[in-house]
Amino acid sequence: MPNTKPYEHTEKHFRASETVRDIVIGMSDGLTVPFALAAGLSGTLDTTATVVIAGIAEMAAGSIAMGLGGYLAARTDAEHYESELNREQWEIQHLPDRERQEVEDYLNGLGLEGTTLQQATDAICSDDKRWLDFMMKHELGLERPDPKRARNSSLTIGISYIVGGLIPLSPYMLIHQSRSALWVSIIVTLIALFVFGYAKGKFMGTNAWKSAAATTLTGGLAAGAAFLIARLIS
Amino acid sequence: MPNTKPYEHTEKHFRASETVRDIVIGMSDGLTVPFALAAGLSGTLDTTATVVIAGIAEMAAGSIAMGLGGYLAARTDAEHYESELNREQWEIQHLPDRERQEVEDYLNGLGLEGTTLQQATDAICSDDKRWLDFMMKHELGLERPDPKRARNSSLTIGISYIVGGLIPLSPYMLIHQSRSALWVSIIVTLIALFVFGYAKGKFMGTNAWKSAAATTLTGGLAAGAAFLIARLIS
Repeated sequence: MPNTKPYEHTEKHFRASETVRDIVIGMSDGLTVPFALAAGLSGTLDTTATVVIAGIAEMAAGSIAMGLGGYLAARTDAEHYESELNREQWEIQHLPDRERQEVEDYLNGLGLEGTTLQQATDAICSDDKRWLDFMMKHELGLERPDPKRARNSSLTIGISYIVGGLIPLSPYMLIHQSRSALWVSIIVTLIALFVFGYAKGKFMGTNAWKSAAATTLTGGLAAGAAFLIARLIS
Repeated sequence: MPNTKPYEHTEKHFRASETVRDIVIGMSDGLTVPFALAAGLSGTLDTTATVVIAGIAEMAAGSIAMGLGGYLAARTDAEHYESELNREQWEIQHLPDRERQEVEDYLNGLGLEGTTLQQATDAICSDDKRWLDFMMKHELGLERPDPKRARNSSLTIGISYIVGGLIPLSPYMLIHQSRSALWVSIIVTLIALFVFGYAKGKFMGTNAWKSAAATTLTGGLAAGAAFLIARLIS
């Protein structure tokens, strides 16, 4: 839909901070999966002891899988960047004509032609570091990864997963009868998903009500499916 | 580490297909979280019936959260792209000087100066569509999302999660005594994680042995933590 009031936004396109994104990633799954698992189990068990154990085991597993998995993936990305960087460096030194042609092709694709194209290509290839940066960013679409950021990001995602998971699980910790706990958990978690989805939409600069509806729907469907499947097989 | 044989790789930098990436994303978590959850529960329960129900409920929840959650996130990205596109279009029409300056600043950052810079800027801004594409891609770093791809991607991730999860859970389905099932599940899943991590490394063009070790470590730590925590609270 067209943006009808662009003059209100002329200062800067909104970008959510990376920390907010990490909290969103962790909390989305944390609110959804432990909620759905607990709902599924509560349909087959009378008391909540096993539901709580399963929920907490899931939170431990999920936060480690997302956190540590994310961290190791980031380290792999960093190694990949390093190896591509070395390859490009080698190519610029040993196959300069081909690499120059790649810069020219790229600029040509932007609409540059004739002498402008030649001069622009010369400008970029006149400095080896600039040339290398250009190849990494434009030919390969790779940005230099930040290793500290990878560690912080993983920690934020893992902790957010646990914080999110505690919301649907707390009713099972406080109420012994599993059916009552299920209802409290459903109400509390759907409200939390809605509020979280709304806040997520606001932070991400998209339609907050739509985001609230989508987040609540995902959590609700996951819980509903887990509940039904657990009932069917038990 | 430096790439010592770049001449072997001169044809094309390897890129994993997007489908392979989706399978990797779904299967990494599918192998890890149901594995860890089942390990955690098996430490507190004598028979495997509840372990299987919890594992299947988790797979349902996890695949829906990853699949549907990913699909809705992709739709949000598409809306975000659309709204930014409309804003840029409006700005090119109503604030052409400022937008032209942004193109110039960008090209200047690439190393273009003087007349070359002016001519290159002219070349890009001479065509409104090209100008718009340039702003979207370079100022905002946004590529046009493909809605069909979002749907296929979600489906692939969700199914891969289930396929991954069936590996650690199948021993619990076949063996009634939970401690025996746990040992079979540990052996089968660690082998699967190792093979999967190795294949992932090969496909992604990174060190396959390191990838195998990292994937196995993540799964093993998640399962170990889930097992210990479940034992402690039960």
